[in-house]
Amino acid sequence: MSVLIVGSVALDDIETPHGVKAGIQGGSASYAGTSASYFAPVGIVGIVGDDYPKRYLNYFKKRNIDLTGLEIVKGGKTFHWSGYYEANDLNSAVSRDTQLNVFENFDPKLPEQYRDADYILLGNILPQLQLKVLDQVRKPKLVLLDTMNFWITGMRDELLKVFKRVDLVCINDGEARMLCDESNLIQCGRQILRMGPKYVVIKKGEHGAMLMSKKMLFLAPAYPLDKVVDPTGAGDTFAGGFLGYLDQKKTLTEDTLKQAVLAGTTMASYCCQGFGIDKTAKLKAQEIQQRLDELRALADYKKIRPRIR
Amino acid sequence: MSVLIVGSVALDDIETPHGVKAGIQGGSASYAGTSASYFAPVGIVGIVGDDYPKRYLNYFKKRNIDLTGLEIVKGGKTFHWSGYYEANDLNSAVSRDTQLNVFENFDPKLPEQYRDADYILLGNILPQLQLKVLDQVRKPKLVLLDTMNFWITGMRDELLKVFKRVDLVCINDGEARMLCDESNLIQCGRQILRMGPKYVVIKKGEHGAMLMSKKMLFLAPAYPLDKVVDPTGAGDTFAGGFLGYLDQKKTLTEDTLKQAVLAGTTMASYCCQGFGIDKTAKLKAQEIQQRLDELRALADYKKIRPRIR
Repeated sequence: MSVLIVGSVALDDIETPHGVKAGIQGGSASYAGTSASYFAPVGIVGIVGDDYPKRYLNYFKKRNIDLTGLEIVKGGKTFHWSGYYEANDLNSAVSRDTQLNVFENFDPKLPEQYRDADYILLGNILPQLQLKVLDQVRKPKLVLLDTMNFWITGMRDELLKVFKRVDLVCINDGEARMLCDESNLIQCGRQILRMGPKYVVIKKGEHGAMLMSKKMLFLAPAYPLDKVVDPTGAGDTFAGGFLGYLDQKKTLTEDTLKQAVLAGTTMASYCCQGFGIDKTAKLKAQEIQQRLDELRALADYKKIRPRIR
Repeated sequence: MSVLIVGSVALDDIETPHGVKAGIQGGSASYAGTSASYFAPVGIVGIVGDDYPKRYLNYFKKRNIDLTGLEIVKGGKTFHWSGYYEANDLNSAVSRDTQLNVFENFDPKLPEQYRDADYILLGNILPQLQLKVLDQVRKPKLVLLDTMNFWITGMRDELLKVFKRVDLVCINDGEARMLCDESNLIQCGRQILRMGPKYVVIKKGEHGAMLMSKKMLFLAPAYPLDKVVDPTGAGDTFAGGFLGYLDQKKTLTEDTLKQAVLAGTTMASYCCQGFGIDKTAKLKAQEIQQRLDELRALADYKKIRPRIR
């Protein structure tokens, strides 16, 4: 196992200004797993009920995503989320209904072969469960924590315990400001680094992403989209692509981390172009490469040495 | 004359979370002129009263800014603006008091030697006056229009007449969204291009800037500042550096335009680090070069070609 993803596997109903979809594949592990699978071998640890459609399980298999760690509860119902986005604010979903169902009793148990995973994504689950996962892994090269506002406001202390034990925290700009009670994102980044992780990625949506360590700062543009169909899962998709890329490179350096941000950015941009995993589920190699190249070109310019008067 | 700047010359009282300053040099022409003067010969067209401090006039001369076009009204009072910023929103100033004084009767008359200027900045003045300036210039290589929310809401029709006659519109993200009634900035950029200009620069504050033509898109990062002392004039400073750089390069290509965005970004970042023109008035050549290099390094990464599975 190269990339281990622990998170939710859900059925989503999503409404955006571009349409409505019901019962589609959702949850952080579905998005992140899909994305990582383009770069590296992936396994998912999650839980579903036996109402979870077989065709969705088959999809994971088709993408070579290992499901040994996916618990299927007999007679149980799968986590179901329903939400929508307003036309003028595609950055934040409004929940209509959240039925945790079997996810309420999720107790992640790692299959033996997963314990040696190199790259671990702690998706958006209870901080206490994230700690349980950390107790089960052996010598990961990098553990990425993806968090969200719900835990920041409701379970801050528990969340900060996780911060101390992970290598990288992925957080969006609004959440970073909330967590740090500070509007300047550079200051937020520094504060988060003092909370434990070696690296922090602050995701700024359409404005790109910022990777920070105590000694390094890297700014990545977002891929410019003139139409965001559905932003659900873009953060998870970013994290999955990020870890998948790192696993493929095998080396963990400032350079590969920067490149991983671009891989994550590329995958997240495709995620926003379709409902759920519609778009990311069937990407061609050349589509990914082309967008990686385009992203680079968008922010590239010649070094300049003006004469200063 | 290489770069001609038409705009306000004012005395400002500014309060930010980092302090209070009264009677400092303000106005779009002061900021833009200061910034452009590091790269090219600059002339200002504006108006002040004879209360305008001699030391401020001397400052302009020291920076080799030509004041032939600065009208000094005997017995008149200089435009005076007073405003403040809230700690959690350094993006928008709140006006306390605006006394137009002599600026109310500003009627820009270009000295003969200014009419052949290559690069023209139409700073934040009445759209009708901007048109008057355009009637007086002969064959500029590029006219940049800097606008603001006040004209967008209050004088839309007049403003759009100016749009039709300029080469480049500089606008911030909030204003672009307001003007276009559209939240997606790529869409906003396209809409603005349909309004007339060949190029548009959408300034996104801490998120950098976007340069667009019908065929080209360029994303520039902002220089990351952990402390914004006073953002007043950052937009004007950007525009000044942008035009000054272009004038120095002599050629107007996609490449030089992109580079000019970085020159403008660099100058604007320094502007935010001091009150008024405190910081930009006394920059050393190596400080500008160093930041240009840093900006580049912040967004630079190796081209990647992952193996896609």
